[in-house]
Amino acid sequence: MPYINIKITKEGATKEQKQQLIQGATNLLVEVLGKNPATTVVVIEEVDTDNWGIGGKQVSELRKQS
Amino acid sequence: MPYINIKITKEGATKEQKQQLIQGATNLLVEVLGKNPATTVVVIEEVDTDNWGIGGKQVSELRKQS
Amino acid sequence: MPYINIKITKEGATKEQKQQLIQGATNLLVEVLGKNPATTVVVIEEVDTDNWGIGGKQVSELRKQS
Amino acid sequence: MPYINIKITKEGATKEQKQQLIQGATNLLVEVLGKNPATTVVVIEEVDTDNWGIGGKQVSELRKQS
Amino acid sequence: MPYINIKITKEGATKEQKQQLIQGATNLLVEVLGKNPATTVVVIEEVDTDNWGIGGKQVSELRKQS
Amino acid sequence: MPYINIKITKEGATKEQKQQLIQGATNLLVEVLGKNPATTVVVIEEVDTDNWGIGGKQVSELRKQS
Repeated sequence: MPYINIKITKEGATKEQKQQLIQGATNLLVEVLGKNPATTVVVIEEVDTDNWGIGGKQVSELRKQS
Repeated sequence: MPYINIKITKEGATKEQKQQLIQGATNLLVEVLGKNPATTVVVIEEVDTDNWGIGGKQVSELRKQS
Repeated sequence: MPYINIKITKEGATKEQKQQLIQGATNLLVEVLGKNPATTVVVIEEVDTDNWGIGGKQVSELRKQS
Repeated sequence: MPYINIKITKEGATKEQKQQLIQGATNLLVEVLGKNPATTVVVIEEVDTDNWGIGGKQVSELRKQS
Repeated sequence: MPYINIKITKEGATKEQKQQLIQGATNLLVEVLGKNPATTVVVIEEVDTDNWGIGGKQVSELRKQS
Repeated sequence: MPYINIKITKEGATKEQKQQLIQGATNLLVEVLGKNPATTVVVIEEVDTDNWGIGGKQVSELRKQS
């Protein structure tokens, strides 16, 4: 019955990669805690790089500098 | 003062349906717990079917199979 | 498949009231959007009144004033 | 190591304003709790005014009335 | 830079199991999306079984029936 | 109308510090975006150091090493 929310910056994750995140996160809960996969929910949220900050800086700006 | 977050897959909920969710969720908190509706906040988030998984599978794929 | 998160201040909601919130929120999604109740998840989070603020003030302080 | 999530209605916040939110929230955690800014994460989510409700009403409708 | 939030019912997950969830979720984001583990944050939230519902029923009640 | 959620590790934040976080976060939204403080909600969540991970490690373990 777990609920897993994965927030990432919106930088081109493919449908296939999202499927891998969903499958992998579900398997993790099954393997570590014996949870039922049928009722395990995974929600991926993609956030604009202008809207994500770390170290007080926007990721969109950090990407330019690197 | 409650805060209610409703996450659904993005599959065409109308403005009217969203209003019904907001009204219904607010009423629920008023009726069950006597909360003040004026400061009850409801936020609906619509998630792409590629980004939602259940049972380890993407909803976009589950929809094709059904 | 919806996921509903209800955050309230921790002020003595009973087990029965929580059941009413779970049932009511699930029904709301079934009635408004035709969602499947079997995979509708409701999570209630109770937050200490010191940890909840509105209008820039702690609820624990607001309760004293009212 | 704090994580700060700011949800606002999607009503034209500029990139510069988002940077101010990220910087300000990070500074707040550093000043009040002495947290390390390098691992402080801020995520801003902008929500359609049809999807945000207060007092049981959609913000998109409240905006029309005011 | 991802942020992963895992919500589970509070039913005795051990410190070691939580470490496995943290390690496993971090590895997943590194392997699937090439994310930097150093800034990947995992937050586990354990929710009372009275506060979690599925299919309109409290988990605390569902556990009694099974 | 903004909603701000601040997650921190549970390591002894005082009631006074929480008030400063609530006041500071509310002011930030007022100053940067001109939001109405009366309907600005701040929720602080304190997470056990066993339940928070960064870099694939539990904070409770990282604290021992430092």
